[in-house]
Amino acid sequence: MHQWQAYLDDHQDEFLNDLRTFLSIPSVSSLSRHRNDVQQAADWVATRMEKAGIEAVRVLATHGHPVVYGHCLQQPDKPTIVIYGHFDTQPVDPVEEWTHPPFDPVVTEDRIYARGASDDKGNMLIPILTTEAILKTGGKLPINVKFFFEGQEEIGSPDLPAFMDDHKALFACDMVISADGGQWGEDQPSVIMGLRGLCGVQIDITGADSDLHSGTYGGTIMNPIHALCRLLSSLHQSDGRVAVHGFYDDVLPVTDAQGRHISAIEFDERQYCDAIGAGGLFGEKGYSTYERAWVRPTLEVNGIWGGFQEEGTKTVLPSQAHAKITCRLVPNQDPDQIVDLIHTHINKYMPDEVQVSVTPIKSKALPYLVPEDHPGNRAVASVYRQIYSKSPYYAQMGGSVPICGLFLEKMKVYTIVFAFGLNDENIHAPDEFFRLGNFRKGLTAYGLLFESLAGQ
Amino acid sequence: MHQWQAYLDDHQDEFLNDLRTFLSIPSVSSLSRHRNDVQQAADWVATRMEKAGIEAVRVLATHGHPVVYGHCLQQPDKPTIVIYGHFDTQPVDPVEEWTHPPFDPVVTEDRIYARGASDDKGNMLIPILTTEAILKTGGKLPINVKFFFEGQEEIGSPDLPAFMDDHKALFACDMVISADGGQWGEDQPSVIMGLRGLCGVQIDITGADSDLHSGTYGGTIMNPIHALCRLLSSLHQSDGRVAVHGFYDDVLPVTDAQGRHISAIEFDERQYCDAIGAGGLFGEKGYSTYERAWVRPTLEVNGIWGGFQEEGTKTVLPSQAHAKITCRLVPNQDPDQIVDLIHTHINKYMPDEVQVSVTPIKSKALPYLVPEDHPGNRAVASVYRQIYSKSPYYAQMGGSVPICGLFLEKMKVYTIVFAFGLNDENIHAPDEFFRLGNFRKGLTAYGLLFESLAGQ
Repeated sequence: MHQWQAYLDDHQDEFLNDLRTFLSIPSVSSLSRHRNDVQQAADWVATRMEKAGIEAVRVLATHGHPVVYGHCLQQPDKPTIVIYGHFDTQPVDPVEEWTHPPFDPVVTEDRIYARGASDDKGNMLIPILTTEAILKTGGKLPINVKFFFEGQEEIGSPDLPAFMDDHKALFACDMVISADGGQWGEDQPSVIMGLRGLCGVQIDITGADSDLHSGTYGGTIMNPIHALCRLLSSLHQSDGRVAVHGFYDDVLPVTDAQGRHISAIEFDERQYCDAIGAGGLFGEKGYSTYERAWVRPTLEVNGIWGGFQEEGTKTVLPSQAHAKITCRLVPNQDPDQIVDLIHTHINKYMPDEVQVSVTPIKSKALPYLVPEDHPGNRAVASVYRQIYSKSPYYAQMGGSVPICGLFLEKMKVYTIVFAFGLNDENIHAPDEFFRLGNFRKGLTAYGLLFESLAGQ
Repeated sequence: MHQWQAYLDDHQDEFLNDLRTFLSIPSVSSLSRHRNDVQQAADWVATRMEKAGIEAVRVLATHGHPVVYGHCLQQPDKPTIVIYGHFDTQPVDPVEEWTHPPFDPVVTEDRIYARGASDDKGNMLIPILTTEAILKTGGKLPINVKFFFEGQEEIGSPDLPAFMDDHKALFACDMVISADGGQWGEDQPSVIMGLRGLCGVQIDITGADSDLHSGTYGGTIMNPIHALCRLLSSLHQSDGRVAVHGFYDDVLPVTDAQGRHISAIEFDERQYCDAIGAGGLFGEKGYSTYERAWVRPTLEVNGIWGGFQEEGTKTVLPSQAHAKITCRLVPNQDPDQIVDLIHTHINKYMPDEVQVSVTPIKSKALPYLVPEDHPGNRAVASVYRQIYSKSPYYAQMGGSVPICGLFLEKMKVYTIVFAFGLNDENIHAPDEFFRLGNFRKGLTAYGLLFESLAGQ
């Protein structure tokens, strides 16, 4: 057994306490009232990195939430990797659906429950702790590692492109390892071959100056909720295919290799639906479920509101109606161009009797694919075989990690996802949790990954 | 001049103070936290009626908010009327849009601002005060009057049908005069020939058990907001006509007299739209604006909500989506049957992949028409000619006063609207007000109406 593995085993209680402390900081990046909490999370990360023995640790300002940097550069002949993760979290609403308060972590049945437990605080803490184990047991890291943690992933990393332009030397590397992402199952690892991109808009429709009496005015002017529903319905065909003109024009067809990898994955429709309580599958005809989730783009309404929403009845003809929309994109769709196409569609379909405003959201991510034979993929696959005693699936992720596309665009390096959360851990939902068994597995895995990359 | 007119003139300050006190009671019938306030308003009305000299005053319990009754029955050879009004109010939200607190009445420029000022406290107080003026100036009322004020009009008077069945003798009369309703303009009176009925449902759609990550699951299952928007869009044709099968089956065609009366009313499209800030008129083809507002039925979405509605972005695939719908009905549509038709439509259009629940709202009103030559209409028309020196319009109201249909169904008597609020007084909206000039006009008008009815 490696010496660092003994150190990891001996410090489990301390590491769990560290994770509890980290999770108790309500670092919700999307809400301005939590701005200081995101800063506090950055400071906590920096302090914990220094304690681990990582060098040159600093908290760097961006135009939004800060970035934390540190490094271990003691192997001039070996490759340099950037390890990426994020210390911000999603909001907690609907907070009344949480079993425990979301920022008061609870450990039960070898799971830790808190907002950010799986996405991404639990996962990003792992490489810091493994590094500590290696450094404190007399070693040095077998490769060069730069640590790069950010505080605005959950809002689409809007300030990172400019920040990266300003700090190119800091980010110079041979590849990026992302501690944000996930594994297939407790007993089934997966190499992540790609992620979807992201863009979106908010739609605000206004009719009359204020809410009106629906008896007096109903039937004489256009109801903005009716206009919004008609517009939103026009965005999809009845089979779920997106009906925005030009939406699929740049989508690359599913490759033979993608098809082969997806076919190799076990899929049980009943199990998939039962796990989330869905009444059935639904989506674009001619594609399998994982094809729809990974290699086909989507347009989803994330929220809608307008008029009277409280208990009882209020017979208003509402003044306003609103919706938030995001798209998941695949190569080679361009986020800005997709927003333009949606805007054009809305302008075409909106009637003159109401006013519409379309505001692109700040979040944006390029779609991303990594070559199957990339050295990083070979390294993580070999680590998976050691730890899980099983060949990994070659899968994709339907979600978006903006820095994947960003590092490829700005630094010309690929990002390899190496993270240990699972799909059922309620990320972005009430009762988010992280399996502590996977937390321990991840600690070992990062040690093995450093060695595997050093040996290539 | 009548002696009672002198009394009215002499007591204007006192009457205004009475109105202020009445308006300061937050008697919002739809919110359970205001239940005691509705009771307090009932008690205040009963006390004020006794002070006016009205006999047999009592507060009667229903299964919901109470009713206040009193009478003056001193003319055995003359007809008996019931005077109707309501002392409950609409909610005040959005309260932040009020210039003054809604239950702290403010008088400025001969207007009184408060929730309930026009609908209906200001209007229902008028006949009580006029009765006081007649009784205190040595007279007795020239006809028999029963006063009947309720506390649940704004929630559709759900307990009145049963209450009326239990108190038939109390309500026996030749006609009802409603102090709830309104006038056409400051210088233009109107005889109200009909009101629309009301029914409605709440729709709740559920997909997965909880909100999901739109990256992981987007494209694989049905989004409940998409399902709701598609459903709501299916309820109307693109020209605004309701598309629910059978919705128009029982609708009586516009009569020649209705068409003639509506044509006689001055209508300026620009003025109509500018008054409410609407971009243009919209509605069922083949009907004029007032025909659409009065003699054609509507289906309006009063509110919609689902998913993430706060600041910023949250990339969820929502678990739920909701909408509140009400219909305004015209003769001979039946509220229960229309709810059934909507329910059938929803069941037909909802896909199997999501679950839908349809809950009829408690509010319900029958559509209502009164014959043009009804003695009550002749009486109010003659009073209008005296007071306004002008012939009244023969108009209808797009709103609903449940007791109109109820008295016709249960007691076989018609209700004549005789009230002095105007359309621009922000009823059901922020900054509701009542013109004190119309308050004074109403006091005189009720005195003349009693005489006119006595002379028939």
